[in-house]
Amino acid sequence: MADLVKKPVTGMRDILPSEMTIRNYCMNVIRGTYESYGFVNIETPVVESLANLTSKQGGDNEKLMFRILKRGEKLRIDEAKNEDDLSDAGLRYDLTVPLSRYYAAHQAELMNPFKAIQIGSSFRAERPQKGRFRQFTQCDIDIFGEPSNLAEIELILATSQALTNLGFSGFQVRVNDRRLLRAMADYSGFPADSFDQVCISLDKLDKIGRDGVEGELSGQGLPAASIDRYLGLFDVMEMTEGYGDKPAAQVLEQFAARLGDALPHLVLENLTEILTTVEEAKGDAGFQLVFDPTLVRGMGYYTGTIYEIAMPQFGGACGGGGRYDGMVGRFTGTDVPACGFSIGFERIIMLLMEQGFTIPDAPARTAFLIEKGVAGTRLSEILKEADALRREGRQVLTIRRMKNTKFQKQQLAERGFEDIREFFRDAEHDA
Amino acid sequence: MADLVKKPVTGMRDILPSEMTIRNYCMNVIRGTYESYGFVNIETPVVESLANLTSKQGGDNEKLMFRILKRGEKLRIDEAKNEDDLSDAGLRYDLTVPLSRYYAAHQAELMNPFKAIQIGSSFRAERPQKGRFRQFTQCDIDIFGEPSNLAEIELILATSQALTNLGFSGFQVRVNDRRLLRAMADYSGFPADSFDQVCISLDKLDKIGRDGVEGELSGQGLPAASIDRYLGLFDVMEMTEGYGDKPAAQVLEQFAARLGDALPHLVLENLTEILTTVEEAKGDAGFQLVFDPTLVRGMGYYTGTIYEIAMPQFGGACGGGGRYDGMVGRFTGTDVPACGFSIGFERIIMLLMEQGFTIPDAPARTAFLIEKGVAGTRLSEILKEADALRREGRQVLTIRRMKNTKFQKQQLAERGFEDIREFFRDAEHDA
Repeated sequence: MADLVKKPVTGMRDILPSEMTIRNYCMNVIRGTYESYGFVNIETPVVESLANLTSKQGGDNEKLMFRILKRGEKLRIDEAKNEDDLSDAGLRYDLTVPLSRYYAAHQAELMNPFKAIQIGSSFRAERPQKGRFRQFTQCDIDIFGEPSNLAEIELILATSQALTNLGFSGFQVRVNDRRLLRAMADYSGFPADSFDQVCISLDKLDKIGRDGVEGELSGQGLPAASIDRYLGLFDVMEMTEGYGDKPAAQVLEQFAARLGDALPHLVLENLTEILTTVEEAKGDAGFQLVFDPTLVRGMGYYTGTIYEIAMPQFGGACGGGGRYDGMVGRFTGTDVPACGFSIGFERIIMLLMEQGFTIPDAPARTAFLIEKGVAGTRLSEILKEADALRREGRQVLTIRRMKNTKFQKQQLAERGFEDIREFFRDAEHDA
Repeated sequence: MADLVKKPVTGMRDILPSEMTIRNYCMNVIRGTYESYGFVNIETPVVESLANLTSKQGGDNEKLMFRILKRGEKLRIDEAKNEDDLSDAGLRYDLTVPLSRYYAAHQAELMNPFKAIQIGSSFRAERPQKGRFRQFTQCDIDIFGEPSNLAEIELILATSQALTNLGFSGFQVRVNDRRLLRAMADYSGFPADSFDQVCISLDKLDKIGRDGVEGELSGQGLPAASIDRYLGLFDVMEMTEGYGDKPAAQVLEQFAARLGDALPHLVLENLTEILTTVEEAKGDAGFQLVFDPTLVRGMGYYTGTIYEIAMPQFGGACGGGGRYDGMVGRFTGTDVPACGFSIGFERIIMLLMEQGFTIPDAPARTAFLIEKGVAGTRLSEILKEADALRREGRQVLTIRRMKNTKFQKQQLAERGFEDIREFFRDAEHDA
């Protein structure tokens, strides 16, 4: 028999009680916020058919998939030539592919439009690094069946409200549209088939800078004139003094003016509506709405609006999403308007932990230290007393009193037990 | 590319919103109850090292394990001879093995005694059948580091309180001890090495009856005199008129009298203490405590007390657990007292769904039906109005008004939206 292993498997982790308290609190706040917008909870299995996980909907995440080994007679190791012979299912790498399958399977039983909350684990075999885990929690909301931008407006308002309810402020919601990215490429005269590559380079603007993007595009043999024209587009952003402080719709207007006819009017109108309505509806909510023509979002399935949460405390995105009107049709043959927003739960938790977050209105805690040997009726009376306190809303821990009572009380105090009571075999000594 | 699959993978299932509402409610009630007893939440990965999952701690569940295929260079399909060459990790089949690993890894950071809540998914490749799924949720509490029966007493009280808080009453908590089962076999004169087999047969008493057990034991070549003596033990149970209504400790006393010296005094004293203290401490709680010498519990890792929840509405057990003082030592070399109680969450949910359970104090629901084309400032004013209602604690759904408004209103009414408001492009028509 192999030796037992104390550590969790590579890249996954055990969660300690102090973090769990924060995770559960945040999950409840996020879920409660989304429920207040009329979203309903659903759950899909963490295991998904391999066909669905390898349908190119998952982009690079498909390469990071964990596969499940076939079982019993289905497993023919001697005949197997490749992974597909050994496996017909895998662990999901996101919640979007399973949700689309779910909608395709249950459409008739669901409200139309269908507004879903899905909170659950996804799995990716990424190289272990800070804040990235091979099992991680995602909190997604999605709206199926709403073609108008009411979907985007609601997703942005609900998600920023959830973050606000967690105590975050000063974050940005950055908005763009895949069709605007397309218009930018067309305007610049890039060949149509280079669009994906142009987006991949633009996506790195933050990291490699304008010169870096220029270098990458040149390296791919794209015409210098197009590259110039493309990068020139962003001058208007830099020119706009206080770019981040101007209303997003105004920045969009200036940017769109440069694109002229390359940008279809309906796309501009749609994005403008989203930006102005969110701006008005958010009232004095402490986040900033930004139009960001450099926002790309990696997933190839997006068909329209895309958006991302940026936190000043954190380099990368803490959430994001967009419209993906084509995915359900992959399952059913009929496209259904679909739009989602995913909160990067692990990053949110990491930020809160780093800030020393404490739960508001945590229940009061009492500890009963019961001397060894206290038993029978005496013990049951003490347990009843604990129960009476619980009915008053307190958390009551009943444990044996240690010989090193000082250490025990200190441990308890560190965990928020301010009320500590001692019970002895002889009730007269109780304290 | 393979065709996409609409159905969930075999034996797993999608959960619809109506069930999710009940699941989340129950999970919160269970978690909240356990927290009120001072238990703390933890989480372990669903993927576990193969060495830990094949250490014989999981009994028959090990055979039902899903394995994860190795990735990248570690996967050598051409050289593979068996499953162990293809896989070094699997999906957990219970929460107990991962919890023991967790405790072994993090002992120094945890309170002593450590009282843990673990709610999560486990996976078993069982043949699909009603109420059995290949992915299922378990709600476990465990106490590590408490050698006295205060652990068992608390686990039984907390678990029955959780079920009571869910509205269950009239259920039984059946209690036994593996050492008493051993004493019964010794008393009967069975050979020591037949103990496991005797227990496996006894465990079927419910299903195959006394004659069936007798047949099985004879079939294994066990001495007829021993079998007679063994089955004779249960006469005292049948003799005890109103067996289920007598205090459990009294039934135990009568039963133990038959066993005489075969039953170590400390085992009897321990079990008696548990039964009397729980009986006294439970007060008027609506469950029944039962001593059941035919209770076996399958898992080989139990070392002492064992217990089970039986519901009159349901044939099998709705939860169970026991003491397993030897498991942490498998990881660390030093045994640690350990005791747990697991609620069969899927069965609880199934029972509640069958009873047409509705959530107490569900939030009031309002639906805003917004005419197509309502946009801009008019839309943001409506969204602000929805938000004001949300701050009052209502759930407010904002969706487009359908042409078939009658159908839409009916769908909404079925989902608990009693307050439906309509908004038109011309505000004067609002209703």
